[in-house]
Amino acid sequence: MVQGSSTIKPRKALSRALPPKALAKKREILEAASRVFRRQGLYATRMRDIAAEIGMQVGNLYYYFENRQELLAFCQRDALEGLLDLAAWVERQELPASGKLYLLVLGHVVHVNEGTPGSLAHLEVEALEAAWRKRLQGRRDEYEAALRRVIADGIAEGVFRPVDSKTAVLAILGAVNWTVKWFRPEGAKSARSIGEEFAEQMVRGLLADGAELEVPALELPELPQPDVGDFE
Amino acid sequence: MVQGSSTIKPRKALSRALPPKALAKKREILEAASRVFRRQGLYATRMRDIAAEIGMQVGNLYYYFENRQELLAFCQRDALEGLLDLAAWVERQELPASGKLYLLVLGHVVHVNEGTPGSLAHLEVEALEAAWRKRLQGRRDEYEAALRRVIADGIAEGVFRPVDSKTAVLAILGAVNWTVKWFRPEGAKSARSIGEEFAEQMVRGLLADGAELEVPALELPELPQPDVGDFE
Repeated sequence: MVQGSSTIKPRKALSRALPPKALAKKREILEAASRVFRRQGLYATRMRDIAAEIGMQVGNLYYYFENRQELLAFCQRDALEGLLDLAAWVERQELPASGKLYLLVLGHVVHVNEGTPGSLAHLEVEALEAAWRKRLQGRRDEYEAALRRVIADGIAEGVFRPVDSKTAVLAILGAVNWTVKWFRPEGAKSARSIGEEFAEQMVRGLLADGAELEVPALELPELPQPDVGDFE
Repeated sequence: MVQGSSTIKPRKALSRALPPKALAKKREILEAASRVFRRQGLYATRMRDIAAEIGMQVGNLYYYFENRQELLAFCQRDALEGLLDLAAWVERQELPASGKLYLLVLGHVVHVNEGTPGSLAHLEVEALEAAWRKRLQGRRDEYEAALRRVIADGIAEGVFRPVDSKTAVLAILGAVNWTVKWFRPEGAKSARSIGEEFAEQMVRGLLADGAELEVPALELPELPQPDVGDFE
């Protein structure tokens, strides 16, 4: 059963039209922040460290991001919107559910580790204060629902065992999100290579007896640029 | 291939002989801390919140734990030593590698969520300063090595696919450790029930074509009391 991509809501248009130069600067700050978060950890990173990374006065940084919480929320929204784009793309492919899940796991690992430079900042929901967390919750739920739909489709197709799709998705999300804690771009394996191993392991974990995984011969779509417009 | 439990080093004896009453109080504090960490999050929890949880003056808390970092390190050592006990027990069982991995995944989920009340505090290595992290690193490595040995044994037995055991273990650890972020004791499913679903999913993900998982008919061992003796 191929579901329309309409099940995932498209991104809202940017609500504040910043001049292109300011948007570019915001992206530059987010990328610098990701580098610092990865290097010295999420909790030891202060606004002044991020400013120093790009030779900016810390006071100027506050023109772009109100505080550290807002900057973190942007990091997390960026990771999440990229994953939702991936899920919408996967939904449009004519593939069995096992092939779709393979691409989702592979794409997730690549995105969180190679997209806006992967770091804990992008996934540590607990680091966000409740008000910010709430603003991201709806999109987070949509992404989990997209994963659950693929598993439910696979069960209906007879490709997957009759698992509880909620538990199965939480196991997969744990595995793929945890990669940002240990993946190193300078390590022996690329994010894609790790993503392929993970995808095979995760899909096989759900296969019905006798069902086989056919690895899809598809290139992942390009990752979009982070959206640095205001939160609605 | 059944390996001797001698591959995992036993716990060191307590290095400081605190009177039994003081040890009991230390355990009580750790349990209270776990409750507070779970309720209000790791990063929003201060020493005074933990003291308040058991009606203690915050000054007295410092008699048992030098600071928040030491308390966190105790939480993490507690989780880790319980997992190493589990791994040593599993190594002693006469089971195929698939059965051993099943018990390890199941036992891990149960331990981190039902043992010293599971919470992020027990697993967030990043929240520890480098000096504390280093003191736990050796035991952490031993646990990962125990998991890798079971997978390597399974590959040698022909039960598992010829995967990279390091990547496979990191996928499994991500899935099981992430449970502490979403598991709620008051939820619809017990930690054991989630652990069983996870164990089946993780073991099947590694099975060689044609190999089958036989779920072991074994009760998990009782969890030991947390060791509240000094760090060596």
